[in-house]
Amino acid sequence: MHYFIVTICFDGTRYHGWQIQKNAVTVQEIFQQALFSVIGESVDIKGCSRTDTGVHARAFCISFGTGKEIRAENLLRALNQRLPSDVAVKSAAECGPGFHARYSCLGKEYVYRLYNGRVRDPFEERYSCFYPYPLEEQRLDRAAQAFVGTHDFAAFCSIRGDVEDTVRTVSSFHVERRGDMVLFTVAADGFLYHMVRIMVGTLLKIAQGKIPDDGIPAILESGDRNRAGHTAQPQGLFLNRVFYPEQE
Amino acid sequence: MHYFIVTICFDGTRYHGWQIQKNAVTVQEIFQQALFSVIGESVDIKGCSRTDTGVHARAFCISFGTGKEIRAENLLRALNQRLPSDVAVKSAAECGPGFHARYSCLGKEYVYRLYNGRVRDPFEERYSCFYPYPLEEQRLDRAAQAFVGTHDFAAFCSIRGDVEDTVRTVSSFHVERRGDMVLFTVAADGFLYHMVRIMVGTLLKIAQGKIPDDGIPAILESGDRNRAGHTAQPQGLFLNRVFYPEQE
Repeated sequence: MHYFIVTICFDGTRYHGWQIQKNAVTVQEIFQQALFSVIGESVDIKGCSRTDTGVHARAFCISFGTGKEIRAENLLRALNQRLPSDVAVKSAAECGPGFHARYSCLGKEYVYRLYNGRVRDPFEERYSCFYPYPLEEQRLDRAAQAFVGTHDFAAFCSIRGDVEDTVRTVSSFHVERRGDMVLFTVAADGFLYHMVRIMVGTLLKIAQGKIPDDGIPAILESGDRNRAGHTAQPQGLFLNRVFYPEQE
Repeated sequence: MHYFIVTICFDGTRYHGWQIQKNAVTVQEIFQQALFSVIGESVDIKGCSRTDTGVHARAFCISFGTGKEIRAENLLRALNQRLPSDVAVKSAAECGPGFHARYSCLGKEYVYRLYNGRVRDPFEERYSCFYPYPLEEQRLDRAAQAFVGTHDFAAFCSIRGDVEDTVRTVSSFHVERRGDMVLFTVAADGFLYHMVRIMVGTLLKIAQGKIPDDGIPAILESGDRNRAGHTAQPQGLFLNRVFYPEQE
């Protein structure tokens, strides 16, 4: 058997997230079709995480094993010839049999892009959330530091069927401006359902004075989803990096 | 009467250019509908130029006169509420009755975006031409200087019905790299049909060694479209700036 780790990049606009489902086009389905067409066998592939409808990825990792002998470089080229224009393989490499895109993952980094120009920008429409109101990014950056550390993020999680542990460790959170674009960059060992988008929505409520600048610790402590802000729109969110241990 | 100059920005992906036509959606039609809905009258609008199917604009100027009394700021806001997400008004101002978006125009600047990464980038797919081969931008920049000046650009013009004067003055041409993106920026007093895209296609033939580095003057002199390169894809082209005399 040969084991591969493949990193893809996708524009999530027309996909219902990563995970395969009935009656909706997902990135997993598109990738599996392309892979089948290249290696001629149907293999079990593992993605590094679920992603939501409309969310993008600059780096999404996939692992799988195959009996087919193929050089990583040729795999990359062949997949890119078959994938549609909104999905591309950025890198492909052989890996050890124990590597699992999801379970081997040590953490991830997301970037949320907020377009803070005075009027809409048609070229940013698919890749950011438009927010034409005053926004002091340095103030939000200070407020966001309350997310850093190990906390129960139950208040920053949309209700989904599965019962799970809601404690996560956020290792960094930065809010910075580049021209009219404000970037929210957050890294953690794992993320709950809608967690980044609710954190961004909460910071926007702070920007609007509806939640005090130092209000985040109390919301974390309450565990009450209703006290946090709304879930920011999906098209501003990018899975930016996935962290793994040094390759075996 | 009140006269306005409105600058819009549009993602040309789903439009058959600016100019209104039967059986195809154009930016002019979309803009006229929005304007009618705001001012309640059908007015004659003038665009600064034709643009081709799939070409984008960061700054496209439109002029018109209306009997309706409306502040420029309110016109901007009302139009942006009505325009689809791929078209936006960036600015609106009152102007003199003699101003005409096309005839008052002194020149224009286009940017052609060539994505020169090793693999496709899904986020650049709609807004650039993918070219994964070696490209020495400084060499192309030197070669492109032969376009600067007043020349007969007949060899750099696709055949279209209208007979016209094919002499134009190119005031500047720059080829520069920003990471994996190579930008071709050209300003002129006017452009012929497909002129920028054929100039870019010709520079790519120079990059490939199919036309000598100093081959442009002979092609200009020949007036022969077949000696120039192919017409580069439309989605890499942006109308970037439109020049007018100081506002009356």
